[in-house]
Amino acid sequence: MPELRQNIITREWVIIATERAKRPDQFSKKKKETDILPERDSGCPFCPGNEEDTPPEVYSVRDEGGVWRVRVVENKFPALVPSGEPWRKIEGIRRSMNGIGKHEVVIETPIHNTTIALLPLKDIELVLNTYRMRYIELARDKCMPMIIIFRNHGEMAGTSLVHPHSQIISTPVVPAQIRYRMEIAMQYFDDTGECIGCHMLKEEMKAKERIICENEHFVSFVPYAALSPFHTWIFPKRHFSSFGNIKEEEVKELAKMLKTVLLKLYYGLNNPDYNYCIRSVPCDEGELDYFHWYLTVVPRLTKTAGFELGSGMFINVSIPENDASFLRSVNVEIE
Amino acid sequence: MPELRQNIITREWVIIATERAKRPDQFSKKKKETDILPERDSGCPFCPGNEEDTPPEVYSVRDEGGVWRVRVVENKFPALVPSGEPWRKIEGIRRSMNGIGKHEVVIETPIHNTTIALLPLKDIELVLNTYRMRYIELARDKCMPMIIIFRNHGEMAGTSLVHPHSQIISTPVVPAQIRYRMEIAMQYFDDTGECIGCHMLKEEMKAKERIICENEHFVSFVPYAALSPFHTWIFPKRHFSSFGNIKEEEVKELAKMLKTVLLKLYYGLNNPDYNYCIRSVPCDEGELDYFHWYLTVVPRLTKTAGFELGSGMFINVSIPENDASFLRSVNVEIE
Repeated sequence: MPELRQNIITREWVIIATERAKRPDQFSKKKKETDILPERDSGCPFCPGNEEDTPPEVYSVRDEGGVWRVRVVENKFPALVPSGEPWRKIEGIRRSMNGIGKHEVVIETPIHNTTIALLPLKDIELVLNTYRMRYIELARDKCMPMIIIFRNHGEMAGTSLVHPHSQIISTPVVPAQIRYRMEIAMQYFDDTGECIGCHMLKEEMKAKERIICENEHFVSFVPYAALSPFHTWIFPKRHFSSFGNIKEEEVKELAKMLKTVLLKLYYGLNNPDYNYCIRSVPCDEGELDYFHWYLTVVPRLTKTAGFELGSGMFINVSIPENDASFLRSVNVEIE
Repeated sequence: MPELRQNIITREWVIIATERAKRPDQFSKKKKETDILPERDSGCPFCPGNEEDTPPEVYSVRDEGGVWRVRVVENKFPALVPSGEPWRKIEGIRRSMNGIGKHEVVIETPIHNTTIALLPLKDIELVLNTYRMRYIELARDKCMPMIIIFRNHGEMAGTSLVHPHSQIISTPVVPAQIRYRMEIAMQYFDDTGECIGCHMLKEEMKAKERIICENEHFVSFVPYAALSPFHTWIFPKRHFSSFGNIKEEEVKELAKMLKTVLLKLYYGLNNPDYNYCIRSVPCDEGELDYFHWYLTVVPRLTKTAGFELGSGMFINVSIPENDASFLRSVNVEIE
């Protein structure tokens, strides 16, 4: 019998479609010839030696010899551009703004044929610390209230370049979706005096069955109303609303947690395509009692279709408790 | 320079990414070998002769000889199932309902290797009239407030069976997304005394530049804040909120409009994958002054990635005015 589940943080309903359900191992990706890549690709703009092929570098982490380990550059085909003063027009139904914003690429490693899950822990820390540094820097621009940090892995997830990289976009508006979630969280706080994220985390830790793993500062779990198979949330245990306020020791633990989760997906499902993103509060909001930032990982194992378009509801053909149990059973070593 | 545009009906912002923009003809799909299909496929459960392979028929349109022209059957792998009384549970963060609902498949034609755009107008009328009849029938079940009618065309749009078909799902909850849109429309009505859909339609008809075409009862246009290339809305000129209240002469005109729009996409972009769905009011709401139903067509020409996941904002790499102009220039004959 299928079940409908509502996510209390988004108020979205999901259909857990048991009549269509698959076993976790049925989602495992087939190996493709194109998975075999060289360690350096002379045609890749993100490979060492081709630094001239990228737009200007805005940040880097270098070793003692001056060789870069992480580079942040402007996107060559930016969705938004940094030039100009903001304007906003309302002419009848036409509500517009100039497309100002920043669009940066985080080149995560000099190695062409790897992925963040396979990097040494120290290197993942460098990437996450780079996210933090860029977040803090971009948040200084008061015209850009929203910063989205995300990663696309694999063709199904919208990647065009295979060299390991993430992206950061700052936008001059707060997206409607973010506002809706803040409203839900605010109402919950006003009704109960509790952050809805802290509440969910506490309940998930008590229930245990959807937990993937836990370390000193983070917990990963498959949400009760997961949108799609192996949808995973990584929550900080400490309450804070802005990713920019993450502490150094938390970055280290987040690196461990991210590596663990991504390696479990890598080995358990044979390197699936996925997106991840950091859901933080708009950066002009300061620290809020009612909002809890988190990182969401969405493996791209199924396609959305007309029903999702027309309803905003997802059909999940996997059972969250089974997904979590499967991921718990995948043993990984993270040094 | 990129531009941000807000859709007044959804309040969602879209980035019109001019730095990444393509020409309309660059979206044209490559022909694939698999596009060559037989008129009858003995292995296809939707082909004539294989009626035993589908779950029970719930509706059909037959010619004078009793041969079916449109068949509606239950979905073999339903997302929701019709059995049982509804229950709803709230246990801490776990909010659930049993997955009751109907999930039907509309087999649009006996011909295996065609698509709705290529059917004779009379046959498209039969399909749309079937939507209407099923909508009215499903709306009688007071436990199912929402009915979503949709079509998935092509692999990118999530089709698993190529034989031309649409689907209808009735759900025991009103999705959060629908509620958000109703709230926006209600507030607009309370502020202005006008339906936001009527207002948008009037403004689009005045501006002309995003209109694709118009007939007696319908107008098609690329919305000002289109989510993706060639995103198209078909609006009824008469104000009404429930698709179930469409009149016979309107069904005829909708058939003409749908065929025209889909043929323009078919010839202009070489048979692209697409989803369409009907956005109607929840069926327990009656006729509402503030809500305007419409049909939305979303060609699947680009992929969404981590940015869309993290922000709910879309990046459109095509300019709506150019898309509309291109589609106007594609000449099609609809008998």
